[in-house]
Amino acid sequence: MEYRKLKDQDQDESSAPQDLESLRVKPVDLTKWKLKSAVTIALTVFTSSQAILIVWSKRAGKYEYSVTTANFSVSTEADEATVYIKVEALKCAISLAALARIWSNEGVTEDNRLSAKLDEVIVYPIPAFLYLIKNLLQYYIFAYVDAPGYQILKNFNIISTGILYRIILKRKLSEIQWAAFIILCAGCTTAQLNPKSDSVLQTPFQGWVMAIVMALLSGFAGVYTEAIMKKRPARNINVQNFWMYVFGMAFNAVAILVQDFDAVMNKGFFHGYSFITVLMIFNHALSGIAVSMVMKYADNIVKVYSTSVAMLLTAVVSVFLFGFHLSLAFFLGSTVVSVAVYLHSIGKVR
Amino acid sequence: MEYRKLKDQDQDESSAPQDLESLRVKPVDLTKWKLKSAVTIALTVFTSSQAILIVWSKRAGKYEYSVTTANFSVSTEADEATVYIKVEALKCAISLAALARIWSNEGVTEDNRLSAKLDEVIVYPIPAFLYLIKNLLQYYIFAYVDAPGYQILKNFNIISTGILYRIILKRKLSEIQWAAFIILCAGCTTAQLNPKSDSVLQTPFQGWVMAIVMALLSGFAGVYTEAIMKKRPARNINVQNFWMYVFGMAFNAVAILVQDFDAVMNKGFFHGYSFITVLMIFNHALSGIAVSMVMKYADNIVKVYSTSVAMLLTAVVSVFLFGFHLSLAFFLGSTVVSVAVYLHSIGKVR
Repeated sequence: MEYRKLKDQDQDESSAPQDLESLRVKPVDLTKWKLKSAVTIALTVFTSSQAILIVWSKRAGKYEYSVTTANFSVSTEADEATVYIKVEALKCAISLAALARIWSNEGVTEDNRLSAKLDEVIVYPIPAFLYLIKNLLQYYIFAYVDAPGYQILKNFNIISTGILYRIILKRKLSEIQWAAFIILCAGCTTAQLNPKSDSVLQTPFQGWVMAIVMALLSGFAGVYTEAIMKKRPARNINVQNFWMYVFGMAFNAVAILVQDFDAVMNKGFFHGYSFITVLMIFNHALSGIAVSMVMKYADNIVKVYSTSVAMLLTAVVSVFLFGFHLSLAFFLGSTVVSVAVYLHSIGKVR
Repeated sequence: MEYRKLKDQDQDESSAPQDLESLRVKPVDLTKWKLKSAVTIALTVFTSSQAILIVWSKRAGKYEYSVTTANFSVSTEADEATVYIKVEALKCAISLAALARIWSNEGVTEDNRLSAKLDEVIVYPIPAFLYLIKNLLQYYIFAYVDAPGYQILKNFNIISTGILYRIILKRKLSEIQWAAFIILCAGCTTAQLNPKSDSVLQTPFQGWVMAIVMALLSGFAGVYTEAIMKKRPARNINVQNFWMYVFGMAFNAVAILVQDFDAVMNKGFFHGYSFITVLMIFNHALSGIAVSMVMKYADNIVKVYSTSVAMLLTAVVSVFLFGFHLSLAFFLGSTVVSVAVYLHSIGKVR
């Protein structure tokens, strides 16, 4: 099938006039572009359905909810860590299963064998460690800002990712793409506005500092992951994912130990699980894998756009599923985000 | 002074390297650019101070007010028409005074003499007539939407001006400038959001239609004015203004007759005037003249950007003058408007 598509592409190309330089696309570029599009769409859909599952579960449990401020519906931090450790385990299992299939089809090669030298593996704990620190900080920031306010401040991630992508990965964005990135951040925040959002402006200084530090940690972890995934392009992504997720499991285990070990042990590791929780774990695992693929085949900027669009998609789907009402701020924010996506695509560095 | 500036410019130019084609600006272009900037800044400042005067007067009178929804602080439509007729009269007087000075300095020429043929004068009533219809409609739209909602809907003006500018004046905006124009509209609306803004989404169909018709009338009047002002570039602007304002006076007189003639005559033409009302009339007159100059030396697009920036400026100045609090929506909207201004400037059609 893939072969046929490539062949069609070749034929299309040979019939194209030779002077239309910009319209001619090499087959390998097209495959790359298709892969990039596919992983981006997958990430958008999984991220969006993740939020929808959360709203669904909270509705079932009659929790207070907001479509733009959805979070795992667990009651303690330790509960959250036990969920994430299962997500990491599932991602590990999926990576191993994919590898097993590849080994039986293609045989074991230098690029797809699981064993790795220390200098390859040594970088994998770093993103997991950064996320751990960020997640620990998350519980302290609530001393300074409420949950909806924190969701607003989380949009700093967009800006920090852009800046660190430029500084660390040394990748350039054009002037137009920078402008697009700034309005993407403003548009996402606008779409999340509610009548009480202004209270975030009263956040004390410590709250702002923590929000910025968390945005930098999260941005740095993202950029670092991209650097790892792209360092050896030929390395099989399932091997890279396997190592990433092994350390993800390890650091979530640390989080449980640090936080509320006794509570978890007393309640049992599978306390309070339902069909929807299992669905959520599968969805989290798949969207985690989609993130890895976006990091390898696209980049952090694409990831930010993808998750931003997912946020809007979630709200629109929730209108049909849950009868949500969309605010004027949501329409304005969506318009701005759409223009940002358009400007990013036309503003490529030449 | 102007001569000296031009001479300096000539010297600067001759010392510049010859290959820096893009950096070389012809003196006449620079004078044009300076004139364009000056009239744009004047319009921004006058529009902004106009809104500040309104807030000031409403504060004095203990009215309910909002910085982004300011309007003339008069109690009836007929009162408003009596204010505007005085504004038009003052603008007429200022144009005549300017002309008198020009005649005594330069003598009467074909371009600056006041008398005009019918085929020149016949176009001047049209914008005044369009504004009259729009102002009459304004009183009917309040059957469908409240005042803050109407302020939100008025942002359709931005889009209608862009579309009519393209269709009627056949002037092109680049893709980036269109994108900038859309986010300018979204950004202005965002900056005006308040916790009750969502009610505008419940506007009945007739309200939407009227808002769109009013936006088209207002956009058409603006574009038509630009066409008149630019049709004969050498024609002295004070002559053009004089004819425009004569018909402005005439149509406001019609508005008084149509609306509430008896009330105006009973109360007297200068009923309820204070120092601040006089200031407001002078400010309105000056900003009206600035609009004419922007139409002649710049264009409708510049006018829209200028009045949008003025709206933001008013809010920021009001923080210092009246201790206003700015909302998060205002910061987000301002960011988007600023990016729109930037994109418009870098997105010029080549």
